[in-house]
Amino acid sequence: MTDWKKRLQDGRRVWYGGELVTRIAEHHAFRGTVQTIEKLLNMQTGAWKRELTHEGAHLSFLVPASLEDLRRKEKAYKIWADATFGMMSRLSEYSREIETGWYANRKALGAVIPHFEAKIERIYRNSRDRDLLSTVAAQDLQRNRSRSNVEVDAGQLRVVKKTEEGVIVRGAKTVATAAPYVDELIITSFHKRSEAQRALANVFIIPANLPGVHIVCRESFASDDAVHDPLSALYDEMDAVLIFEDALIPWDLVLVAEDPDAAWKLHTDPVAVALSQHQTVVRLISKLQSVAAIAYGLAKSADVTGFLHVRNELANLIMQVETIEALLRTAQHTGERHNGVFIPNRLYLGTARNLGARYYAEGIAAIHQIGASGLLQTPASLEELEVHPEWREYFAASEGFNSTKRTLLNKLAWDFVGSSLGARHALYERFYSGDPVRNFANYYNQHPRQQAYMEFATSILREENR
Amino acid sequence: MTDWKKRLQDGRRVWYGGELVTRIAEHHAFRGTVQTIEKLLNMQTGAWKRELTHEGAHLSFLVPASLEDLRRKEKAYKIWADATFGMMSRLSEYSREIETGWYANRKALGAVIPHFEAKIERIYRNSRDRDLLSTVAAQDLQRNRSRSNVEVDAGQLRVVKKTEEGVIVRGAKTVATAAPYVDELIITSFHKRSEAQRALANVFIIPANLPGVHIVCRESFASDDAVHDPLSALYDEMDAVLIFEDALIPWDLVLVAEDPDAAWKLHTDPVAVALSQHQTVVRLISKLQSVAAIAYGLAKSADVTGFLHVRNELANLIMQVETIEALLRTAQHTGERHNGVFIPNRLYLGTARNLGARYYAEGIAAIHQIGASGLLQTPASLEELEVHPEWREYFAASEGFNSTKRTLLNKLAWDFVGSSLGARHALYERFYSGDPVRNFANYYNQHPRQQAYMEFATSILREENR
Amino acid sequence: MTDWKKRLQDGRRVWYGGELVTRIAEHHAFRGTVQTIEKLLNMQTGAWKRELTHEGAHLSFLVPASLEDLRRKEKAYKIWADATFGMMSRLSEYSREIETGWYANRKALGAVIPHFEAKIERIYRNSRDRDLLSTVAAQDLQRNRSRSNVEVDAGQLRVVKKTEEGVIVRGAKTVATAAPYVDELIITSFHKRSEAQRALANVFIIPANLPGVHIVCRESFASDDAVHDPLSALYDEMDAVLIFEDALIPWDLVLVAEDPDAAWKLHTDPVAVALSQHQTVVRLISKLQSVAAIAYGLAKSADVTGFLHVRNELANLIMQVETIEALLRTAQHTGERHNGVFIPNRLYLGTARNLGARYYAEGIAAIHQIGASGLLQTPASLEELEVHPEWREYFAASEGFNSTKRTLLNKLAWDFVGSSLGARHALYERFYSGDPVRNFANYYNQHPRQQAYMEFATSILREENR
Amino acid sequence: MTDWKKRLQDGRRVWYGGELVTRIAEHHAFRGTVQTIEKLLNMQTGAWKRELTHEGAHLSFLVPASLEDLRRKEKAYKIWADATFGMMSRLSEYSREIETGWYANRKALGAVIPHFEAKIERIYRNSRDRDLLSTVAAQDLQRNRSRSNVEVDAGQLRVVKKTEEGVIVRGAKTVATAAPYVDELIITSFHKRSEAQRALANVFIIPANLPGVHIVCRESFASDDAVHDPLSALYDEMDAVLIFEDALIPWDLVLVAEDPDAAWKLHTDPVAVALSQHQTVVRLISKLQSVAAIAYGLAKSADVTGFLHVRNELANLIMQVETIEALLRTAQHTGERHNGVFIPNRLYLGTARNLGARYYAEGIAAIHQIGASGLLQTPASLEELEVHPEWREYFAASEGFNSTKRTLLNKLAWDFVGSSLGARHALYERFYSGDPVRNFANYYNQHPRQQAYMEFATSILREENR
Repeated sequence: MTDWKKRLQDGRRVWYGGELVTRIAEHHAFRGTVQTIEKLLNMQTGAWKRELTHEGAHLSFLVPASLEDLRRKEKAYKIWADATFGMMSRLSEYSREIETGWYANRKALGAVIPHFEAKIERIYRNSRDRDLLSTVAAQDLQRNRSRSNVEVDAGQLRVVKKTEEGVIVRGAKTVATAAPYVDELIITSFHKRSEAQRALANVFIIPANLPGVHIVCRESFASDDAVHDPLSALYDEMDAVLIFEDALIPWDLVLVAEDPDAAWKLHTDPVAVALSQHQTVVRLISKLQSVAAIAYGLAKSADVTGFLHVRNELANLIMQVETIEALLRTAQHTGERHNGVFIPNRLYLGTARNLGARYYAEGIAAIHQIGASGLLQTPASLEELEVHPEWREYFAASEGFNSTKRTLLNKLAWDFVGSSLGARHALYERFYSGDPVRNFANYYNQHPRQQAYMEFATSILREENR
Repeated sequence: MTDWKKRLQDGRRVWYGGELVTRIAEHHAFRGTVQTIEKLLNMQTGAWKRELTHEGAHLSFLVPASLEDLRRKEKAYKIWADATFGMMSRLSEYSREIETGWYANRKALGAVIPHFEAKIERIYRNSRDRDLLSTVAAQDLQRNRSRSNVEVDAGQLRVVKKTEEGVIVRGAKTVATAAPYVDELIITSFHKRSEAQRALANVFIIPANLPGVHIVCRESFASDDAVHDPLSALYDEMDAVLIFEDALIPWDLVLVAEDPDAAWKLHTDPVAVALSQHQTVVRLISKLQSVAAIAYGLAKSADVTGFLHVRNELANLIMQVETIEALLRTAQHTGERHNGVFIPNRLYLGTARNLGARYYAEGIAAIHQIGASGLLQTPASLEELEVHPEWREYFAASEGFNSTKRTLLNKLAWDFVGSSLGARHALYERFYSGDPVRNFANYYNQHPRQQAYMEFATSILREENR
Repeated sequence: MTDWKKRLQDGRRVWYGGELVTRIAEHHAFRGTVQTIEKLLNMQTGAWKRELTHEGAHLSFLVPASLEDLRRKEKAYKIWADATFGMMSRLSEYSREIETGWYANRKALGAVIPHFEAKIERIYRNSRDRDLLSTVAAQDLQRNRSRSNVEVDAGQLRVVKKTEEGVIVRGAKTVATAAPYVDELIITSFHKRSEAQRALANVFIIPANLPGVHIVCRESFASDDAVHDPLSALYDEMDAVLIFEDALIPWDLVLVAEDPDAAWKLHTDPVAVALSQHQTVVRLISKLQSVAAIAYGLAKSADVTGFLHVRNELANLIMQVETIEALLRTAQHTGERHNGVFIPNRLYLGTARNLGARYYAEGIAAIHQIGASGLLQTPASLEELEVHPEWREYFAASEGFNSTKRTLLNKLAWDFVGSSLGARHALYERFYSGDPVRNFANYYNQHPRQQAYMEFATSILREENR
Repeated sequence: MTDWKKRLQDGRRVWYGGELVTRIAEHHAFRGTVQTIEKLLNMQTGAWKRELTHEGAHLSFLVPASLEDLRRKEKAYKIWADATFGMMSRLSEYSREIETGWYANRKALGAVIPHFEAKIERIYRNSRDRDLLSTVAAQDLQRNRSRSNVEVDAGQLRVVKKTEEGVIVRGAKTVATAAPYVDELIITSFHKRSEAQRALANVFIIPANLPGVHIVCRESFASDDAVHDPLSALYDEMDAVLIFEDALIPWDLVLVAEDPDAAWKLHTDPVAVALSQHQTVVRLISKLQSVAAIAYGLAKSADVTGFLHVRNELANLIMQVETIEALLRTAQHTGERHNGVFIPNRLYLGTARNLGARYYAEGIAAIHQIGASGLLQTPASLEELEVHPEWREYFAASEGFNSTKRTLLNKLAWDFVGSSLGARHALYERFYSGDPVRNFANYYNQHPRQQAYMEFATSILREENR
């Protein structure tokens, strides 16, 4: 048993369906995912140690000094992502990269945020050396989406008091993906706060079992049946709302309190952003590859690869993967040294993430199109094939797919497109970094090319001497 | 208890997960839907008798003589469809309309199919007078979709022997939607069979409990929790494969045996097709209205109706409903008398069905877009609101949606887009009448306007005297 | 020669390319279209008199009292639209229906707008009895689209002075489609004006030759070559900006001056809106049918109807026509009597128009897809077939398309998708009633179903007794 | 005057509208483009010599030995492409790269194609040293698209006789883009020919003025007005059909005659394919950047950048450019040495080209959406602004766009989306390498990942030990 599994019993208050969960590793909603994480952590100490770690720590904690370092990180992420079909978006590498980014850039940040340097150094080393898992919660509860970034609201996490020991906070943060499984929670703020919203402008890194912190889970999508629901049984990373009941955050863990500029500086820190987005793009590739592989399997086993429209779907899935790969590769190659850290180019990462929101939806639609009503004609279970031998015969397909394999492949495909976990992922990929309509708009707003295009547009006319 | 519910125990062989289900009404996978059907049947004898029946029989058995009769049928369908969010696509009206159509057109059909007239008259009267529920199974198992309509295959339902009592058949038929709940199975053939495929060219109407017939169900999507899963708990109509183990079909129930022309004539009978498609379009309207209503509720409760793109989504959902309504209305108004039966215009019904395959997908996408990540931030259950009073406060929304109502609305929306039942419906609406890519192609092929357009194209040139 | 053609010389100030056009009927930019209109007007007095007129006046002037009257109007519109491929969107029926609508509803409007009844009666009778052509200009120049409806702007048409004779106005109105060809200009206001914008809130109906009014044309898309450019040579209806240089509008022609409420009342008058939109939907059908016919011709002559994706495109074009037809038919059937006038249901017309903006773009894309690079391999002219006999042989196709016919068909298709006139139509269909993104949003805003859906959404929850 | 311009009078038989064009540089249909090419050639000998040439020859003739060489080629292409908005797709670099590729790979090709090595060496050196312009014609006339690659047809270019001097050929080839302007024609074959089609399996490189060769042009899209039609006046590169009237091809210029395998080997030569596709992707980037710049200019000058949907369009255009850039960059970085030549990775280039077919259509749609009806309200010409001073005032916009600049920008935008040249480009980008539906299908067919995905799909199941 890993140390991590023992730490699950550290007193964290995980709520499910109105009840406090005392034994996470045995609870229906969590046990499959606990096994998965356990497996991944064992890879790190076992056969995959060299690929996954650097000087004893997971590569997500490495401060990259070169393109080569970025590639090592990429490979480490890819191994875990491939082992989980890209379905575990928050295996801590993402949040660890934020921590690592802040640590790597601590001098520059420390110059404007008092005490930052010493605090982040202590926190980072503790996380790294103890191999702690973490997640980030940055958003307010969706109450009124249209106004969520301009008004203060009873539900928003805010400082209600400052004491000698620390700050006392009340309110909620979301989406704390994977929260029941992690050791540390990074609390930050997605939106730029105004002066009137000072109370909301905070950044903390706290242990998951901090008194007064409640991890309230959404409905579980976990299944008990790893044979027929191969994804739902193992990869529901869970999403949670964090409710703070006048929790005391000790000063040591308070990176920013009531300081809009400092909170925004951390949230948009180029090193932390570049490193964490780098990870999300690597995971995206695994997921798109899984979708492509399933689509291929379905098409071959149903023998429909002769149709032009099916080939078009498959070609599109290949092109998706190559496009995101090219954007990742180019982000790395055009990366640059920032305060001594080698970081990938965020423009290409941003494009990759924006495209990802579309591509996954297209991938799911391709599985629909190719699987078609055949997905509803799959035997309910392998038992069916025993009881009704006709099924065995009828359901056998070409290309080496006997009826058992074909049943399992269809089940896997259905778990992607037909389970609640699958539906959650369709939403997640589209919305995890906010509403894409507004993200696209922001992307435009901040893009450095904007100026270049305007100059081009006016130069066209200048050339004509007008 | 209705007679129908008693008939569930008539010995039909319903298989679920490798086991024979002996008490359907109490089985987890079926009991919610049994309640729903019971409720609908009680409406018919109770408060809604006048709207739902004609001379004691359900209006789906009425042979329409006028536009007025079609409108009465429409209203009857709409009442049941509205009561089930349009989620029950096979509440027997569809298959009953096929039976009614054959009955109504029995003289013309009987002129070319020996014994047809007497047989269908007896069957129809029995179904109508005993208020039997039924379903249709027309397709072969999807083995190799690309070849399924050209080759004979071990799994296809075929005549293996003829005896004095009837024909003995072996093989499978699908998709038998709602089969566990019905009294009668209409077995027909989706594809035109060649002479070489004579053995496949059959049409029967048989009792669900006929010896040798096995109803093998797909994985159940039913939930036990009607509060949090309002659709899955009540409306999983189930899909099944019918496996025939050398079942004997008595001659009285054999409408066609080994006769490609006759089987195709029944499958494409204009009266049966027009009446049954008429019903599917009415149900489609209920479903699209439900989607629109949920999207409205989500948009209002999340207060995002100020965004242009949200309004566009909502406007689109309204236009969908109006478009399908207009096609239905026009199909009725341009209907015509066919051998004494007043039938709606199939061209407009066909267009409505083709559009429906797109529209439902757009509707689901609209709920995604509007609900966004908020759908994953819904409290796991109403209990949550009790245990964490903060939730109650945070989750309350404008427009009279308190936190309980908003939670329930989000749950309902999620059941549409995030449950396995929801995913099944997304597939169903797109594929229930075959692959839309090929349907569109066929639609083109058979369309009477094809000729008109060619004439127009050449007339353009003729006018120029070339 | 028609009276109309003589009236072209009435002194109207038509500007083209910086010059005043004195002989419109002979000018390169206008002469083809003058011929076309002349032909249509001759139809009305000649062979098609019965179908096109009622008691001597064109049917666009008929005040409809019944569904039957609407159908007569529809047929009259269809005849002219078919004769021009639906490319002439403003053959006056549209603007005449606005005038007819105001006239038909004059009592109700007159009750709130002083002198309205007498004025519109005189104007309408004059237009009807003299068979005058007209157009509408309702929009301000696009200066800053985002602010155009909230701010007053130097370029906007406004009252600068009132005198005993009438009002003196300055500024511009657009898009005055077909203005060079018409006798009367209906000047109205697309946006609701605020009190601060009183000067902009005017409605006039003026002769095209009113002193101080300048009709400034856009670049012409007319061709001289009716053989190779069959649309551009005959159907460029032209768009123009109207510039008013302190023009005096006599009181008799001033329906509203500086009165935001009254101007808005006329702009949104249900009778005028319903009748004029009725006409636009009829024309849309002709245009979509033309696109479908050309697509069919291309597909047949290039022998590509065997491809699934080509059939899908063709099926889609058929469904477009049927959908718009169904919406038109339903708008008529669910029409109702309004102050004694039988008007079609605007909801279905609105949906038809909104869909039209999408459908035409899809139609053009279908011609692209089907014609493909073949459109660029068409002989430059019929002469080519004489000079290079090889072309004659190579370019002959199946289905009775010899090389001459095929060349002409491809030229016609290219005129739809490759000429400037074609491009103008692509823009026109999408934007003629404003930005569709905002139109959709408005459609949502005003839609009566909005309330119904909200009630449905809340009733869902009410049923559950919460 | 360049040598090239003199060579235009070398006796080539260019036909336009049924007439032989004797003075190309002065003919309406060609003179603007002649000026453009002249300008580009002067850049090469003048100020841009260093960027455009290597050892006296244009960089398109360089055999690349390294990544660095590829980057030099890229830069040279970009300079010409930027100078022509990416509208000149066939400035010979494409066809020169094919020639260069065959030359670079001559040893390997010569090993299987007799005499190839010596012939290509002579041809290449002549082209390079004399700086000849060229184009490729590979396709048969579109007669029956669906059968064009399986049947022999009267119109197809074929060997009719072999003599001592060479082969005599008859028939047509297309699309010979830019043919009137070039010195050499590369005749090859797009489809794999069967043994029965031996007569069609030829590859030649011939001078444009070879006796018996006729260059028959499509309709010209050239304008005379460089101020108002800035693209059409300068960049109509023309498309032509080549008709061979029993032309004698001397053996020296016959690379392949009647040899399906050899013709296919040349057509699919990895070096020639990689180098020529490399150029097309560079040009694509220029074009997408031009579209983006124009869209930006329109949005800013119409002041609509505040709308979410406009920002989304603009963000999308930026992402397009970054995506294609990333694919190009990755194709270069993952390039490899092939027989001593450093060639880019064709997979990423292929994806870039496939995406390009979609992206350009999206770009055009974005200009439509943003320009909207404003594009039809542009003054017909700058003269308009003189004659009607009101226009000057009304049409002035923010962001430094006075009415003259804004008029010119709108004209430029209209030339992209509203001129026949613009329409030709919309078709060209989509279809220049064949029907994208079939290209996508082929892309799937040949893709090396296909196997990997299947292995992944089956490994999923293998892991589970089934």
